[in-house]
Amino acid sequence: MVKGGGGAVGIAIGKAFVLPDFEWDISDYQIDVSDMAFEFEKLHEGVRVSKSELQQIKQEIAEVLGVEESNIFDAHLAILEDPVFMNEVAGIIQRQYKAAEVAVKEVVDKFVGMFDLLDDEYMKERALDIKDVGTRLLKHLLGSFEEAKPPEDQPFVIVAKELTPSQLAHLDPSRLLGIITASGGKTSHTAIMARAMGIPFVFGIEGGIQTGDLVILDGATGDVYVNPDEEVDADYQERRRQLLQNRERLNSLVDVPAVTKDGIAISLSANIASIQELEQALKHGAKGVGLFRTEMLYMDGHTWPKEDEQFEVYRSACELLQGKPLIIRTLDIGGDKQLDYISLPEEENPVLGYRGIRISIDRRDMFKTQLKAILRASVFGSIKILLPMISSVEEVHKAREVLELAKRELREAGRPFQELIPVGIMIEVPAAATIADMLAQEVQFFSIGTNDLVQYVLAVDRMNEKISHLYEPYHPAVLRMLKLTVEAAQRHGISVSVCGELAGDADALPIWLGLGVRELSMAFHSLLNVKERLIGSTEEGGKRMMEELLKCRTSAEMKELLHDGRRPGQAG
Amino acid sequence: MVKGGGGAVGIAIGKAFVLPDFEWDISDYQIDVSDMAFEFEKLHEGVRVSKSELQQIKQEIAEVLGVEESNIFDAHLAILEDPVFMNEVAGIIQRQYKAAEVAVKEVVDKFVGMFDLLDDEYMKERALDIKDVGTRLLKHLLGSFEEAKPPEDQPFVIVAKELTPSQLAHLDPSRLLGIITASGGKTSHTAIMARAMGIPFVFGIEGGIQTGDLVILDGATGDVYVNPDEEVDADYQERRRQLLQNRERLNSLVDVPAVTKDGIAISLSANIASIQELEQALKHGAKGVGLFRTEMLYMDGHTWPKEDEQFEVYRSACELLQGKPLIIRTLDIGGDKQLDYISLPEEENPVLGYRGIRISIDRRDMFKTQLKAILRASVFGSIKILLPMISSVEEVHKAREVLELAKRELREAGRPFQELIPVGIMIEVPAAATIADMLAQEVQFFSIGTNDLVQYVLAVDRMNEKISHLYEPYHPAVLRMLKLTVEAAQRHGISVSVCGELAGDADALPIWLGLGVRELSMAFHSLLNVKERLIGSTEEGGKRMMEELLKCRTSAEMKELLHDGRRPGQAG
Repeated sequence: MVKGGGGAVGIAIGKAFVLPDFEWDISDYQIDVSDMAFEFEKLHEGVRVSKSELQQIKQEIAEVLGVEESNIFDAHLAILEDPVFMNEVAGIIQRQYKAAEVAVKEVVDKFVGMFDLLDDEYMKERALDIKDVGTRLLKHLLGSFEEAKPPEDQPFVIVAKELTPSQLAHLDPSRLLGIITASGGKTSHTAIMARAMGIPFVFGIEGGIQTGDLVILDGATGDVYVNPDEEVDADYQERRRQLLQNRERLNSLVDVPAVTKDGIAISLSANIASIQELEQALKHGAKGVGLFRTEMLYMDGHTWPKEDEQFEVYRSACELLQGKPLIIRTLDIGGDKQLDYISLPEEENPVLGYRGIRISIDRRDMFKTQLKAILRASVFGSIKILLPMISSVEEVHKAREVLELAKRELREAGRPFQELIPVGIMIEVPAAATIADMLAQEVQFFSIGTNDLVQYVLAVDRMNEKISHLYEPYHPAVLRMLKLTVEAAQRHGISVSVCGELAGDADALPIWLGLGVRELSMAFHSLLNVKERLIGSTEEGGKRMMEELLKCRTSAEMKELLHDGRRPGQAG
Repeated sequence: MVKGGGGAVGIAIGKAFVLPDFEWDISDYQIDVSDMAFEFEKLHEGVRVSKSELQQIKQEIAEVLGVEESNIFDAHLAILEDPVFMNEVAGIIQRQYKAAEVAVKEVVDKFVGMFDLLDDEYMKERALDIKDVGTRLLKHLLGSFEEAKPPEDQPFVIVAKELTPSQLAHLDPSRLLGIITASGGKTSHTAIMARAMGIPFVFGIEGGIQTGDLVILDGATGDVYVNPDEEVDADYQERRRQLLQNRERLNSLVDVPAVTKDGIAISLSANIASIQELEQALKHGAKGVGLFRTEMLYMDGHTWPKEDEQFEVYRSACELLQGKPLIIRTLDIGGDKQLDYISLPEEENPVLGYRGIRISIDRRDMFKTQLKAILRASVFGSIKILLPMISSVEEVHKAREVLELAKRELREAGRPFQELIPVGIMIEVPAAATIADMLAQEVQFFSIGTNDLVQYVLAVDRMNEKISHLYEPYHPAVLRMLKLTVEAAQRHGISVSVCGELAGDADALPIWLGLGVRELSMAFHSLLNVKERLIGSTEEGGKRMMEELLKCRTSAEMKELLHDGRRPGQAG
């Protein structure tokens, strides 16, 4: 048994296929000045084809795995569009009279070497990105070259020194049982894709496996067995069977109503960022969209999307939803999300910066355009408007002003829309939770964004590895903020849903049942898992649990209680 | 009348002294290889002298204006220690055979040009820093040169294209009436120093003033009058007289007890960062130290300060305080405060990152050393320990573990200390305010850090100019967090003080009186101002005001209420 790191859970048992290390074999020869134009043409054609391939892969991944995973390829596209990278290549051709492929290889090697030198997970990942793009580009510059291919007629576990997202995207998922690599990590692009594809992945395994070996890998523990004895084999066969059974059992729940044992119906909706994700969500039994992140519409192009373009997307969503509710969040850029075509200020602390509604209120025209597109689509379905990053009553007033303006313009143009379209706000800034009672009198619904709320309440950037252990949704202060918010909504008769990651965490379900939340919105792949837990739960049990949770003083106590059903030291 | 920007309030009336633009006149000649060693020696000697001068100025400024203002010169020292800057200079001498002064001038010009190109207030300020350091260094490289000096026998208003902090530091403050510059801004180092020195400052005035002109400048409005008529002159003479009278009136309050009209005594303490500031604070009538920021002790050297060094500082503070309380906050680096000798991770959002108690708990040895130094000093006065950035009960437990370890080691070494030294926490993370009742059972006192609290509750980085208008201490959510915290402390019988900027804002006084806060700690220059307001107030009035404040839904309402004594629309 060899011990690696767990990159994506699941158990794979099968024959290994070892992908040989790819070595570039490029002869370094001088070109004539007269050939220079040809080399540049070759380079530009290679870049063009590489880009269109990447766009194609991105599209495919978006359809199969969802938009967020497909964004991995944006990093690759960005390299091909990076002037520093391309200028260096051009410089070598021009000044050193070298062929395009030689120039590309030199620049790729240089950057890879630089990033690799830095002993940093993130930088190593960037090196892998550049290598991936470089390989693709070289393939087109050299005409063609053969990559070792796994056997076409049988399933396999792929074993490689490293596996790029592109390589992974090209493997037949129906035959790919598992992935074992030497490099990579839990946060690598490859790990993210493997998780999304549901393929077990173990990293950190260096050598020791030959093509044809029988391997067992456990993506939860990072254990890898090479040519195991019968006992181990039988044990893992059984474990694997159970995992598959679980998956099947979940799939059988798609059309089962989401109702607790004591008869409380909970609406389980999906968070989406695109029409493709909506299709996936509906396949997983989503009862609507609790959060449509509209950033993607703004990120695809090189300028603000036009009103009509946006309208078409929102209308398509309405059509797919056939009357099921659709909550559209207005543009929430800033923080870690940037747009090419508007230059946002460089910020010392972007998460506490110019983002969400703060930008929309500042750029009224952009905001009004989006609101008009949403309003026009509102006659095709059941749409609500959700405002992000609200921290005061004033901000709601300012946003409503722009909404009124949008309505007036549509009225004057004779365009139909829902006059009484509901407006809600994200509760994600601590101030908003703290004055939820005041805000509840200003809007028609709340949607609790637990990710940001936890981050701000605890003053912990969840992306910061150094302190990510302090990012703890199960914290007494967070629980009180949730309670404050839900009770304010209930007292003022407005609806409240939860759309952060915590909504998709089945362990948190007693909290929602205990508080009386009736709507949860989550990533589509969590829907069935949460539903299974839900139909085995009671609201009564949630209320009892909530009482005990509120007595907890530490996260450890809370988690123990949720896990074991009682607090440490409490009489059973 | 010319209109500029207000950089530091106050009114100045006097004769102008125009500082001519300084022009470097350096001839660009080649040196011999044999002279190179001499040029390098000249350079290093110039750097050495410049550094020791800067350290001297820094020390002087720290004594007169306090440590925070003196930190301005750290930026200058950093330039002289910057390898990029110094390597460029060395490279020009070495490869282009130029004299040290020529090399310095070229590099300074280049950097100044680069920074100036960027249309950004902050970058322009960096350009001024480099120019300031460059001038100092050149002065030493060229032997000497004459700077125009203001008349020695009479007061003057200095007028300059730009005025560097060094230049300002060299002007005799007893004769400097006011400052007028073309460049600069409200946040420039010069403005900060002018405010600390209490010298009126207007920026953005280009030309139009000759040496000997009579000028009036109003640092509040940015108005500048050149050779005004008698009426204006008389008007401003009167205004200036009132300002001075105000200052005298405040100074007369130093020994007056801080008691409200209805007999409530409030302890007004100072926030300090050094012994020099403590001396200033005592001169301003401080009744103790509510917040000793210990970061300075860690920033001066190139390694962790030893236990003995720290102990000496804490003991000196005790001696100066003669039994008055001294609250020492343990090291609060991270965020925007860095140390040379420990490499903290580069963070995307440092304010939400690895800082304060999070670092101390991680680096137990460093933390234990500080606690031992504090414990040893505790027998010389009335010391309390304050822990920064607490967000959970667990963190208090972990910190206490280290404290117990420190105590055990001192006991074993036979060193005396206060066994029952009180331990308190900063309430600055929203989570801490939210679970203040739980935390109140773990510690002996709270100190509310309003700056960070407001920042986190509203999710607004106060240093971010793009959204600084959203940084609003007078916000209903902040008020509720303050109330929650103070009431939790009162219910559990522990003391609570306020040490953020809001404590030094006289307008906020009704809030503290209304909540029943009995201790405020602030920058020493706010002490008398707050005291004056306090002795004219009643607790009763504060309580009434607080009732009304809690009904406000917006910041505008709150501020109007605090200003006019009633809410908009409320019957008088």
